[in-house]
Amino acid sequence: MKLEVRYYDVDTSEPTVLLHDDDCIEIGVKENDRVSIAGTRVAVALVSRSDTLVEKGCIMMPLNLMEKCAVDEGDTVNVHYSQKPDSVRSIRRKMDGEKLDRDEIYSIVTDILENKLSKIEISAWLTSLHINGMDIDEIADFTKAMAETGDIIKFDREPVFDFHSLGGIPGNKITPIVVSIVAAEGIMIPKLSSRAISSACGTSDFVETFCDVVIDADRLRSISEDVGGVFAWGGAMNLAPVDDMVIKIEHPLGINPRAQMLASIMSKKVAVGATHLLVDVPTGSGTKVPTIEVARAYARDLMDLGEKLGMHVECAITYADQPVGSAVGPILEARECISILEGADHPASVIEKACDCAGIILEMAGIPNGAVRARECLESGRAYKKFMEIVVAQGGREDLKSSDLVPGKFSQDIVSVKAGYIHAIHNKDIVAIAKAAGAPNDKGAGLLIHRKKGQRVEAGEPLFTIYADNEAKLKRAIETARKYAPMDIEGMLIKRVSSTTLRK
Amino acid sequence: MKLEVRYYDVDTSEPTVLLHDDDCIEIGVKENDRVSIAGTRVAVALVSRSDTLVEKGCIMMPLNLMEKCAVDEGDTVNVHYSQKPDSVRSIRRKMDGEKLDRDEIYSIVTDILENKLSKIEISAWLTSLHINGMDIDEIADFTKAMAETGDIIKFDREPVFDFHSLGGIPGNKITPIVVSIVAAEGIMIPKLSSRAISSACGTSDFVETFCDVVIDADRLRSISEDVGGVFAWGGAMNLAPVDDMVIKIEHPLGINPRAQMLASIMSKKVAVGATHLLVDVPTGSGTKVPTIEVARAYARDLMDLGEKLGMHVECAITYADQPVGSAVGPILEARECISILEGADHPASVIEKACDCAGIILEMAGIPNGAVRARECLESGRAYKKFMEIVVAQGGREDLKSSDLVPGKFSQDIVSVKAGYIHAIHNKDIVAIAKAAGAPNDKGAGLLIHRKKGQRVEAGEPLFTIYADNEAKLKRAIETARKYAPMDIEGMLIKRVSSTTLRK
Repeated sequence: MKLEVRYYDVDTSEPTVLLHDDDCIEIGVKENDRVSIAGTRVAVALVSRSDTLVEKGCIMMPLNLMEKCAVDEGDTVNVHYSQKPDSVRSIRRKMDGEKLDRDEIYSIVTDILENKLSKIEISAWLTSLHINGMDIDEIADFTKAMAETGDIIKFDREPVFDFHSLGGIPGNKITPIVVSIVAAEGIMIPKLSSRAISSACGTSDFVETFCDVVIDADRLRSISEDVGGVFAWGGAMNLAPVDDMVIKIEHPLGINPRAQMLASIMSKKVAVGATHLLVDVPTGSGTKVPTIEVARAYARDLMDLGEKLGMHVECAITYADQPVGSAVGPILEARECISILEGADHPASVIEKACDCAGIILEMAGIPNGAVRARECLESGRAYKKFMEIVVAQGGREDLKSSDLVPGKFSQDIVSVKAGYIHAIHNKDIVAIAKAAGAPNDKGAGLLIHRKKGQRVEAGEPLFTIYADNEAKLKRAIETARKYAPMDIEGMLIKRVSSTTLRK
Repeated sequence: MKLEVRYYDVDTSEPTVLLHDDDCIEIGVKENDRVSIAGTRVAVALVSRSDTLVEKGCIMMPLNLMEKCAVDEGDTVNVHYSQKPDSVRSIRRKMDGEKLDRDEIYSIVTDILENKLSKIEISAWLTSLHINGMDIDEIADFTKAMAETGDIIKFDREPVFDFHSLGGIPGNKITPIVVSIVAAEGIMIPKLSSRAISSACGTSDFVETFCDVVIDADRLRSISEDVGGVFAWGGAMNLAPVDDMVIKIEHPLGINPRAQMLASIMSKKVAVGATHLLVDVPTGSGTKVPTIEVARAYARDLMDLGEKLGMHVECAITYADQPVGSAVGPILEARECISILEGADHPASVIEKACDCAGIILEMAGIPNGAVRARECLESGRAYKKFMEIVVAQGGREDLKSSDLVPGKFSQDIVSVKAGYIHAIHNKDIVAIAKAAGAPNDKGAGLLIHRKKGQRVEAGEPLFTIYADNEAKLKRAIETARKYAPMDIEGMLIKRVSSTTLRK
């Protein structure tokens, strides 16, 4: 039917028009159905209905939809019922526990990319994946579909190595060290990292304190091929864009279906053309992977999927019962990371984890005694030299020093009220304190841990120091630290639990 | 954090605010998370993010949310992360196949009613119900929760009888006849009907051509208690309102989870205080219930649920391989219905179905030989007298005659191209033709069927007549009739199938 266009100022991630109830009956559409709107050009949108917010005979359209149809306010458009995309039928089949074929999976991914599926439909898709799952063939198709609906980076050199951490552990600043060692040994590793999602500091959050992380695909390719490695931000490239769209729907449901999680990781690796991949699986209480058994299952899935994708995948199950190293927060982590490359001999946990991971990659590339070789590379200063080449290639200063990196000027030590041995450090509490201090947005915010598990502390000695860029956030972080008491100290009253301190 | 209020003109079935990406990081919220917004009063809304559509330091709020918070444009509000409602955890438990308890089910239903759950969450809920289902105890709690979150009508008289059809069959105009017979026998039956959802004509669509169907709860009660019956529109009352909200999400997914379907029907019966219920289960190809086995399963579910709810439920599995009677469309159905009450002896299918259903209800009320008694009641004119009492009570004319009801002035006979016996009449095609003619919105639109299954037709004789209120729709309906050819006639070429006529 013919309707007059009115402007409608809505957020348009999901193109929606508003129609009068009577016109909906006339057109034969219900709430959340679709209509095709023919102006100068044709577009499809979801229907919202009202009998008060829109006049009969009118269609309220958001601006970008008006542009799509090439119409102005007051123009007349022809509005008809439009069928659901075929991919809704495939979602329905997954609801009913069926196996989907390649074409069905590609059409779901393509329709998500093109905003053809509504939030309601994507939610049903993710819920079905959560409940009914996918077999490994479906996950491989899903991974390829997610990769191929975005940009694919092609290198002139092979093999292409990559490294990924499942995350969930604070202070895990090893990526630039691993990349520098591996690249120093002549192995190309174009590593793309993420920013913090729920953590206090992602790799890109601290790397950007000393060089650019926003680089485009051409620069990624040329730096990788010339220098051997990068540590850039994946979000600056259009790699597997559907993954980010899906996360927005997945997050509020608090689910991360295995199929989606695996396809999410691996699609980005397919997109950068990785031929070899090491996955770090941090395992410990308070992380995503609480036990070795769960870690083994993740590793099995990732390796099986790698095989289907023609990618050599290995996994490193790593210790994650407490933060890696001492520093948590962008500038603090950058300083600790660079100081190790400069030659510092601590914290041991960072050095060991970085060398062990780099060592596995070296062995995957055919270099024997990888961990020893990695350590030599780090201690000899060759890794540092390579690190500086990458930093400069990514726009960083040639005379970068770890001591240039100064954390927030507001700080406070949190001291132990009694003597004892550190029995536990709770990752989630450490993250909460760093975030309360302003991390990752405030670059100087975070904390420096002075005592790790098993170490002795005397009464009045500092357990950790909180840094913040402003006083209000420092205060907030101190309150958070008092409330959570992130370290358990043996041989003393650990916590007084009352209704105000009781943790959820 | 403190943000400045800006106006944001959005549809607000799902209260949503728009925040700048940087502010989201600061607040610690992601897309589709919730924030609490403290102005003069506090409200909760879902988050949309952008780094272009909204300025840093501002929050774009729809008008009704500004009213809720009692703020104006330019005011400052305090915005914080707000946890998901607890019911999201219960939805998550249903995703994981757990049984939900009464409190969890009530909190989900209440949160849907209060717009506290997003479309994403409701979709996940329905998908979980579709896949994991509910046992009969959960369905009973779900039914009661849906009823109790709306108005409950209490009658001074008991028992309260009710009648419901699962629908899906065109021309099913028996409700006013059943109600009139039952009420004439002194049994109270406050029958609430619906309008067409996907059909060509719901009971309320044709009843409103001769009397009011929009009556409020008080009038429903007084007419029922004084006259013995009503045939009103359920949508005019606030009965089980969550059901309508859920249908909007369920419909685009093309699912109707058994638990939701049963709770949807029964919650409205609980809300009108029904003590006894007969459910008509039309069974035949092209309806919701294709076989007797499926019909028996529905009947079993409905009776089990009735038992849990303390309601005496019986079911009538009825023939539905072709339309009931001859007329399809509001005025045409009203005319046929009233003519039978006036004494017409055809169509036999309408008279038989109405008397059989009324007869079961009479027997449920302890009156023996129900079907015979119902027939006598109809033939004696007592049902007609009661019908007219109800019509007048619902604001209809005292001198109402079936002949007053005149269908659309544009009509065309569709004739048979060859002689033969009617082998099949396809319900869905009949509905499509009536809808193309304008039903149920155009009251005069529809069709009158001249030959039913098993009857002979000669070449050139009319199979049915299409009526419409305007010429364009008549033309559209004729094209639909040509395309679908809704009747199969034995002993001749039934259809020529080409790519243009191939039915989906």
